[in-house]
Amino acid sequence: MAQRHPDPTHPAAGPVPAAALERHLRARATEFLRALRAHREAGAGAATGESAEAARALRRSARRLSAGLHTFQPLLDRDWAQALSPELAWVSGTLAVEHGCTARLERLLLALHRLSGAPVFPGQAATASGARTAPAVSAPAAVAGGSPAPAGPPPARPGADAPARTATTTTAAPPAVLTGADRGHLTVGAAKAGALLDRQLTLARTRAHSTALQALGSSRFHAVADQVAVLASEVPLAPGAAHADLRPPAAAARDRLTDAVAALPLVTAGSPYNAAALIHGLSPDPAPHPQDAPWHQVRLLLRLHRYAREVLHSGADGPTRAAAPAAVDAALRAAGEALDRHRDAAEAAAAAAQAARTPRIAPATAYALGVLHADQRHEVEAARYAFQRCWRTEDLGTS
Amino acid sequence: MAQRHPDPTHPAAGPVPAAALERHLRARATEFLRALRAHREAGAGAATGESAEAARALRRSARRLSAGLHTFQPLLDRDWAQALSPELAWVSGTLAVEHGCTARLERLLLALHRLSGAPVFPGQAATASGARTAPAVSAPAAVAGGSPAPAGPPPARPGADAPARTATTTTAAPPAVLTGADRGHLTVGAAKAGALLDRQLTLARTRAHSTALQALGSSRFHAVADQVAVLASEVPLAPGAAHADLRPPAAAARDRLTDAVAALPLVTAGSPYNAAALIHGLSPDPAPHPQDAPWHQVRLLLRLHRYAREVLHSGADGPTRAAAPAAVDAALRAAGEALDRHRDAAEAAAAAAQAARTPRIAPATAYALGVLHADQRHEVEAARYAFQRCWRTEDLGTS
Repeated sequence: MAQRHPDPTHPAAGPVPAAALERHLRARATEFLRALRAHREAGAGAATGESAEAARALRRSARRLSAGLHTFQPLLDRDWAQALSPELAWVSGTLAVEHGCTARLERLLLALHRLSGAPVFPGQAATASGARTAPAVSAPAAVAGGSPAPAGPPPARPGADAPARTATTTTAAPPAVLTGADRGHLTVGAAKAGALLDRQLTLARTRAHSTALQALGSSRFHAVADQVAVLASEVPLAPGAAHADLRPPAAAARDRLTDAVAALPLVTAGSPYNAAALIHGLSPDPAPHPQDAPWHQVRLLLRLHRYAREVLHSGADGPTRAAAPAAVDAALRAAGEALDRHRDAAEAAAAAAQAARTPRIAPATAYALGVLHADQRHEVEAARYAFQRCWRTEDLGTS
Repeated sequence: MAQRHPDPTHPAAGPVPAAALERHLRARATEFLRALRAHREAGAGAATGESAEAARALRRSARRLSAGLHTFQPLLDRDWAQALSPELAWVSGTLAVEHGCTARLERLLLALHRLSGAPVFPGQAATASGARTAPAVSAPAAVAGGSPAPAGPPPARPGADAPARTATTTTAAPPAVLTGADRGHLTVGAAKAGALLDRQLTLARTRAHSTALQALGSSRFHAVADQVAVLASEVPLAPGAAHADLRPPAAAARDRLTDAVAALPLVTAGSPYNAAALIHGLSPDPAPHPQDAPWHQVRLLLRLHRYAREVLHSGADGPTRAAAPAAVDAALRAAGEALDRHRDAAEAAAAAAQAARTPRIAPATAYALGVLHADQRHEVEAARYAFQRCWRTEDLGTS
């Protein structure tokens, strides 16, 4: 058996033929079409579990298709790839907004719980409006070394405290632990902040849902779906690309990533508690964090790099594929998750700041939103630190 | 020349005679009396620079006298030491309150500047009330890696932007950068938060000043001063203590410190961004941070250990004293400074939370106070991290 480097992205490994790209794109296109059918069968109007799962699969395949067309464009029919790649990005982007609202609300309510020193699994409790039911938000495990959480009120309905994610199809009530008239006005503030965020983000989610439905019914989307259907059976390669090597375009994607990472302030990020992320926390600018943009850009480039590696690995033959360096993939995934957290925390902080601009809110509500905003900006800083650690400890398949 | 261990606190070093303690206490008592005289001559009623400097010297010597009587009590007249040590602690504690208010206000205004992304040396600007002048608070150097600070408004009076610390005897205006009607309501919030904190902490400082003056004129204080005057010429040792070794009581102080540090959650503190310090940031309890208490206790024990080392080192003969391990002293000082920051940030966070409970404040003010509170609690967490690093990298003369 010939000696072959186990990592096809490594320069010493042999060339990866364009057929691997064709296989990859056809498989992703088939997934896209299957997800689209599942989404339609689940009933596009209802925000059911199947519908959400189908939308997730649709986003996933659209992202990979778009990335594949972008990264390997030199090997593909140029006009076709340049036209379809952004359209697929539009599809995944449009579908992502609704999920983003749901995740952001959950993140913010969890943070409100944590900041209130709430018990790990707060029970349900009747709120002032009575008819609402509080979702049992599963708070993060108590941080080791913190002081013991204060004893929360006993669940008003002890049978109803089974762990469940925040219900996104019903209006979420303020976190259950924040009820009780004897708990002082700051706690009321946290509860009111939660209710305000819930209203605003649920409204945004509903709007995003409508927008996504409209998009899926638009002629623009039908044109995309038609092109993906063609792609599922035939990939339009560039003339003479059938015998080309996939590694140079993948290496270019990797280089774009390493260049962008090199421009990040990693020395600052690696020094804990540098307070850089909150430096404009009280800025009057509604979008006061231009410092976030390079990190968001690296997040996208890291994703392109990961997807390009997927293509190369799927193109390697059996034993080589099995021997693909799982450690590098794991480190890349961890780095990507840190940048996802960075994006999520930055958007959650912006949502808290946005909610604080609501006219006529109570001071206690605004105070809680301020604490929440700062907390999320510190999560931004923590995510940068985590990314720097991932990047430093591994070469992440970039060399 | 006999081999002698250069560190008199080391078990291998020779005994340190009680005469060193006598010298130390007499010297500190003399300093106390000199500072008291300077304070009276400076005019006790006026908050002048000399008066503040004399109060600082009075606190400094009272702390060391009290610590010496406490740590070396086995070698001293027991009833006398047990009675005088707390009285001296009362003197230094009473005098410290005023200084604490000043430092807290300065810390909070600096943080408001930093959080607003203010330029390093904001200029002066006319405020709404016109008559006030804004102090040019020297903001910390811009954190490397942060985005560039937004261009502030040009100083209204360009000649007046010389760096100066926050004036504490005049009413400080909101930070200068926060003026200008076009800067959105959150900036107004930061300005109002600064003005509110200024009012509240200036009032507290004024009250503390009066309390300190009353204390210095009280018969209780005169009794303390009389005893210190006696101490300046004669130290009442316990029977048979003249030939005793100072090292065992100093070692006991060291052991109390190491035991208290061992009980701290140092593993959590050493893991950056553990979010432990803010876990009760939205708790309804006005004093929601019982987790701080063990750290405050370690701060006091570390000070006792440092002062005991001062006594032992002053008792060592010439060459040994010169060879005292400066690295250990520097590390101890750094650890103590981290715990001072811990205390200062915890108290500043409490002051921000307290200000947010003021009735009828604007939501924007409350929001800024919330951000400020969270920021200071993160400083608490950062200080714990810094302490853990100091403690880990050095044995700090405790072994």
